[in-house]
Amino acid sequence: MSIGRFISLEGGEGAGKSTQLRALAAALRTRGLEVVETREPGGSEGAEAIRALLLTGGADRWNARAEALLFAAARADHIEKTIRPALDRGAWILSDRFLDSSRAYQGQGELTDDDILALHRIGSVGFLPDRTLLLTLPEEEASGRARARDGDSSDRIGGRASDFHQAVAEAFSRFAREEGDRVRAIDASGAAEVVTVRLLEAIEDLLP
Amino acid sequence: MSIGRFISLEGGEGAGKSTQLRALAAALRTRGLEVVETREPGGSEGAEAIRALLLTGGADRWNARAEALLFAAARADHIEKTIRPALDRGAWILSDRFLDSSRAYQGQGELTDDDILALHRIGSVGFLPDRTLLLTLPEEEASGRARARDGDSSDRIGGRASDFHQAVAEAFSRFAREEGDRVRAIDASGAAEVVTVRLLEAIEDLLP
Repeated sequence: MSIGRFISLEGGEGAGKSTQLRALAAALRTRGLEVVETREPGGSEGAEAIRALLLTGGADRWNARAEALLFAAARADHIEKTIRPALDRGAWILSDRFLDSSRAYQGQGELTDDDILALHRIGSVGFLPDRTLLLTLPEEEASGRARARDGDSSDRIGGRASDFHQAVAEAFSRFAREEGDRVRAIDASGAAEVVTVRLLEAIEDLLP
Repeated sequence: MSIGRFISLEGGEGAGKSTQLRALAAALRTRGLEVVETREPGGSEGAEAIRALLLTGGADRWNARAEALLFAAARADHIEKTIRPALDRGAWILSDRFLDSSRAYQGQGELTDDDILALHRIGSVGFLPDRTLLLTLPEEEASGRARARDGDSSDRIGGRASDFHQAVAEAFSRFAREEGDRVRAIDASGAAEVVTVRLLEAIEDLLP
């Protein structure tokens, strides 16, 4: 049996996470690996119920603190019910967003990065991905792509001002600088097929 | 305008919290005070939605960590949307359960009291009641009362073993010993009217 691995894909709106996740999953499957595609918030029955609470309602439905607690609760359930069982049977798990999104989106204002990490320690014993692939784009290109799509940007999380998204991008870059063993920044510009090759290179050392 | 006060009622299953909360609210209203009766988990629109997630499903629907995060998220919403606005207009708020229930029920096993207090600091800036009335009964009397009722004891929280409820009672007693300024243990045995008088005595110094 192969060793299970947990990989998270991170990045701002419009960086191509969903497209790349599907392509990466397909590439891994051609190597004979079992691949589980999942996402946050969500990825388990309980976490999807929490996701429904998080993404509906007006911008003021939840304050920043309640929101961070709900994300952490969803993550605890996602890890217990979906990620750990898949790891235990030797699967590769690819998650569209994980802890670093909470750190970048919720830990740069009223709450700090330390607060988000404390919630993750209490909720999930600090469980981390084997590798985090951070898709990076120049700000203008990312916002252009996000605008070109309908849907995602109009929910409670996506529909925010440009300086907020800039702060998120800076936080992600800091994680890549400070936790380079785990978090790898990947240039997400150019043809999708080329980006997928870059992602595969960034996990090559983990492959069987 | 009178000064708003926030009072929580705590205690194990069958201690008579709901009955006493209604009686205490009535007694305070006869003194001309605006009284808001509320409960946890719940007490605001968002917190009631989280309550529905917490109290339905099998015993293993949520692990202890996810459960503690959901309770803390509900509490953050309850405080922001219901308790603080009522306090600001000078009302008295009586809550059937609050933070000490999380500490007693969720902070005595896999999670510690410090974990629960950390969640409350991050979620609600450590906001505490002006007074907490802990209704205490001998264990046998409490479990007899709980059995005599239908409903409450069959939910995810109520339906647990006797040694668990004993540990909860011991935790509550410890809070009363260690935080005696805020937490007052009240003998809940005897006629309901007599218990209500004891509760009124325990908040007399807060009355206008």
